[in-house]
Amino acid sequence: MAVGYRGFPDLGSVAGIRIGVASAGIKRPGRRDLVLFELAPATVTAALFTRNAFCAAPVTLAKRHLAATAPRYLLINTGNANAGTGIAGLTAATRCCQALAAHAGCAVEAILPFSTGVIGEPLPVEKITPVLGELLAALSDNAWEAAAHGIMTTDTVAKGAKRSIELSGGTITLQGIAKGSGMIRPDMATMLAYVATDAALSQSDLHQALTTAVNQSFNRITVDGDTSTNDAIVAMASGASAISVTSADDLARFTAALSELCIELAQLIIRDGEGATKFITIEVTSGRSEAECCQVAYAIAHSPLVKTALFASDPNWGRILAAVGRAGLDDLDLEAITIHLGDICIVRGGGRDSGYTEAAGQQVMAAEEITIGVDLQRGSASARVWSCDFSYDYVKINAEYRT
Amino acid sequence: MAVGYRGFPDLGSVAGIRIGVASAGIKRPGRRDLVLFELAPATVTAALFTRNAFCAAPVTLAKRHLAATAPRYLLINTGNANAGTGIAGLTAATRCCQALAAHAGCAVEAILPFSTGVIGEPLPVEKITPVLGELLAALSDNAWEAAAHGIMTTDTVAKGAKRSIELSGGTITLQGIAKGSGMIRPDMATMLAYVATDAALSQSDLHQALTTAVNQSFNRITVDGDTSTNDAIVAMASGASAISVTSADDLARFTAALSELCIELAQLIIRDGEGATKFITIEVTSGRSEAECCQVAYAIAHSPLVKTALFASDPNWGRILAAVGRAGLDDLDLEAITIHLGDICIVRGGGRDSGYTEAAGQQVMAAEEITIGVDLQRGSASARVWSCDFSYDYVKINAEYRT
Repeated sequence: MAVGYRGFPDLGSVAGIRIGVASAGIKRPGRRDLVLFELAPATVTAALFTRNAFCAAPVTLAKRHLAATAPRYLLINTGNANAGTGIAGLTAATRCCQALAAHAGCAVEAILPFSTGVIGEPLPVEKITPVLGELLAALSDNAWEAAAHGIMTTDTVAKGAKRSIELSGGTITLQGIAKGSGMIRPDMATMLAYVATDAALSQSDLHQALTTAVNQSFNRITVDGDTSTNDAIVAMASGASAISVTSADDLARFTAALSELCIELAQLIIRDGEGATKFITIEVTSGRSEAECCQVAYAIAHSPLVKTALFASDPNWGRILAAVGRAGLDDLDLEAITIHLGDICIVRGGGRDSGYTEAAGQQVMAAEEITIGVDLQRGSASARVWSCDFSYDYVKINAEYRT
Repeated sequence: MAVGYRGFPDLGSVAGIRIGVASAGIKRPGRRDLVLFELAPATVTAALFTRNAFCAAPVTLAKRHLAATAPRYLLINTGNANAGTGIAGLTAATRCCQALAAHAGCAVEAILPFSTGVIGEPLPVEKITPVLGELLAALSDNAWEAAAHGIMTTDTVAKGAKRSIELSGGTITLQGIAKGSGMIRPDMATMLAYVATDAALSQSDLHQALTTAVNQSFNRITVDGDTSTNDAIVAMASGASAISVTSADDLARFTAALSELCIELAQLIIRDGEGATKFITIEVTSGRSEAECCQVAYAIAHSPLVKTALFASDPNWGRILAAVGRAGLDDLDLEAITIHLGDICIVRGGGRDSGYTEAAGQQVMAAEEITIGVDLQRGSASARVWSCDFSYDYVKINAEYRT
């Protein structure tokens, strides 16, 4: 069970966005593995994708389609990533879009395809296309929770979040779902996330808000340092509330709410990280730049030695110190740096803080949620990264997945 | 048991170098945890150390002593790294050197201290100094195997290697020992390694030969991506054979033999990597530079998803492809790149090679020693990195070590 998971929230609907869920039996029979979003005609869309050079066929195709026209449908399958599939993969994704376009009566380019699951297997188009009519017929206002289940792979829980915010023109809704558990070190977005609002925004404002939100959320989490081939996040603004986000003040409020929403979804991915038993926040402060703060934070977040010590609830702080030391920052003032576990100072003056006791360290480490704080004492920048521990179950999940 | 381990070789002695081993009971009573090398007066020494900014107190002190005078003794303890110990750690290391200098009748600066073990605990000087007399009395020509055992931490086997080479002046001996199993991503050297020859070399030639050898060996291995705070390698040339390495030809032969020796020792560390069940060679060829080849090789070698698939003997080649894709190289020609598992081509033309079969992939993956080959098809540089898989035992060892 995900660390600190409080159940799926009551999402309700977002006017202008309908969702259908169906079963194509891609990986196993009966699993509801196909999800369709239908966007009302005036919906404005922004999307960010993985920077993995070997990006999946649906990522390549979705980018092309986005450049051509405004999306009306998002077609998502789980159970197969359609990645590492070369030209054949591109053809397969195109055939799914073509078949849906024929059913829905829209342009092929108005459909964005998304896939998640095993890399390198051919996408079973013949299982997907016969279900598309059923999928369209299933469209409803209230299928967000079913969709959150429909996009899961090794996730153990469905992930959703919601905000209502007051803007000058009235109250708007902002909500989303996400999936992801392993191969998580988003460098642009994360595995898959879909957020929608009934507000109206220009495409450039929506894109800017999404970029800002993602940089503080999905770009600040890591389970295992592996960037997926299929990462994507889509933001949809249906405008169905007839409330426009135009003033600088409203846009700032919208961006802040979208960031909060994305942080909640990104944290849910970490809470459900493969084999995770601990939710870790790494805060690096007083750096010269955000980049160097991230460098230190990721050195800690990716260290298998730190992650196994966290799993063992062992305050083996020497491993944290070693990770900071190998992060590659020049001219570190080792005497000035402090490292905290929660409120407990563990490192000061280049070694163990004189006030530190093993008992105090153990008390922090025993908790399910742990904050590691590193103060570099050489600037005013900071960064926060979320990660999880490394357990027997991580090895079990990844040694047994696929086989 | 280490992968493909063939037992400790019959090292014999290196004229001019004597070794003593004793028990100080640093971590547990009776364990032979102190090793002393005595170098004949004319011995020339070269050493390389970790680049971890939080380097251990003995590393700092050894560098200072090396700059001051030629070493006569190397004092090594296991069970405590004396790292993350601040000023007190430096004082503790100095006190050990002072006590030994008094016993041995040499300058304090003629002693190089080395420590390995848990980070952050005070070095128990009071346990070490009473044993120094016994350690000096134990010095003998034939204690290389005992020394290899004496420097182990989580190592499961002692590591040694030997070469005899013909130079223009006659036959010389070159041999060494090493320790290391976890926190292995040497960025300069590895955990601890000591190599000795009875040949005579100038300090600059020995340093150059060592640097060349280390770049091809200890700088090309990774278990977990974590660079230790205590890494060090020392090369000692006693000159006791009265054979000098002076001509360019002899120096080239000596450097080649030293490189081979270091590669064998470095590979032994990987074979004994924490929890390792597989020995992995990653060869990246046809890159634009050695640096970019290393970048790709380490992206594969550090991927927990690749490592757990290797543990499961699962030819989940999509994870290898994803690691290549996220390595951060610009303008990769995805259509041109090929990826091999052993002799089997798995990726060609951006996807699974048409001739690939799961059965062929499984056959390669079932072996204990596996080579992953990546051909970038864009230059003439190459790099080879050695690594191991990621097993339940890695988590067990690192979750339970120290506690």
